[in-house]
Amino acid sequence: MATKKASQTKGLEDLFYDGLKDIYYAERKILSALKKMAKGAESEKVIAVFEKHRDETEGQIERLQQVFEIFGKRAQGKTCPAIDGIIKEGQEILEDFQQAPALDAGLVAAAQAVEHYEIARYGTLITWAGLLGLKNAVPLLEQSLKEEKATDEALTQLGEAGVNERAMQKAA
Amino acid sequence: MATKKASQTKGLEDLFYDGLKDIYYAERKILSALKKMAKGAESEKVIAVFEKHRDETEGQIERLQQVFEIFGKRAQGKTCPAIDGIIKEGQEILEDFQQAPALDAGLVAAAQAVEHYEIARYGTLITWAGLLGLKNAVPLLEQSLKEEKATDEALTQLGEAGVNERAMQKAA
Repeated sequence: MATKKASQTKGLEDLFYDGLKDIYYAERKILSALKKMAKGAESEKVIAVFEKHRDETEGQIERLQQVFEIFGKRAQGKTCPAIDGIIKEGQEILEDFQQAPALDAGLVAAAQAVEHYEIARYGTLITWAGLLGLKNAVPLLEQSLKEEKATDEALTQLGEAGVNERAMQKAA
Repeated sequence: MATKKASQTKGLEDLFYDGLKDIYYAERKILSALKKMAKGAESEKVIAVFEKHRDETEGQIERLQQVFEIFGKRAQGKTCPAIDGIIKEGQEILEDFQQAPALDAGLVAAAQAVEHYEIARYGTLITWAGLLGLKNAVPLLEQSLKEEKATDEALTQLGEAGVNERAMQKAA
């Protein structure tokens, strides 16, 4: 167990460390969720975006390990109720819309909620890393943020490219 | 209880209805969380942003009630584990960083996670409302999305305007 500091002395370093542990836990959960979502999705295009981002997520986990090292702390996760809840909603889509025309549209929406969570967290961590003078950590976090934003954009395009229209078809 | 449809026949209307119930529940939870965060924050500027967005959130809840009406369904919420988790992390900041120099920086980060969840959900609902021909619903949802994005931007500026620097101060 980490030593519990009195809250009055807690500063930006503590926030940054907590935030790093939060996103480290989240990324590993997302990796496993993306595998399930890629397996569950129907359209080849949706599967391709999930699989590409699954591979990127592996790289993001490695980058976080480097950031922990730069920060001089051991890489460790901390339960993140936010990502647990977001992923739970994705699992509900997988169950409730099984074999439904709207399945992929629901999965794309679920994945966009995941991406936005990461966009918020990486944005904050980049600002804090800069303030803490962790110069080598900033570009690593920025690279991951760039990938999250590109994935969100790819998901939006999937919606426009027919996944949502498919969801409007009546089942046979 | 709602009648349970076989998943094979579920289409975009079902997704849209589920999504509306999700954000309706979320907005009401956020309203209550913003009140607590405004009470807990220290800087006047942070409190002002939380209070402004608390008022906007009341308007967003009313807009959602109008969207339910346009859609021809009764306004009702559905437990949203995602927002429950995101808000739980905000509460942890309030407890763990009580009276700490980093409290406001942590609250701003927590609020940005909330905003990004809403940005993702409203973005999806706007696309789906358009596809479902709910023309009067689209501008209502777009107005709320615009407010969420403006709040996220205001929070980023708060960070740049000194909230994070304050977090770097050593406590007396």
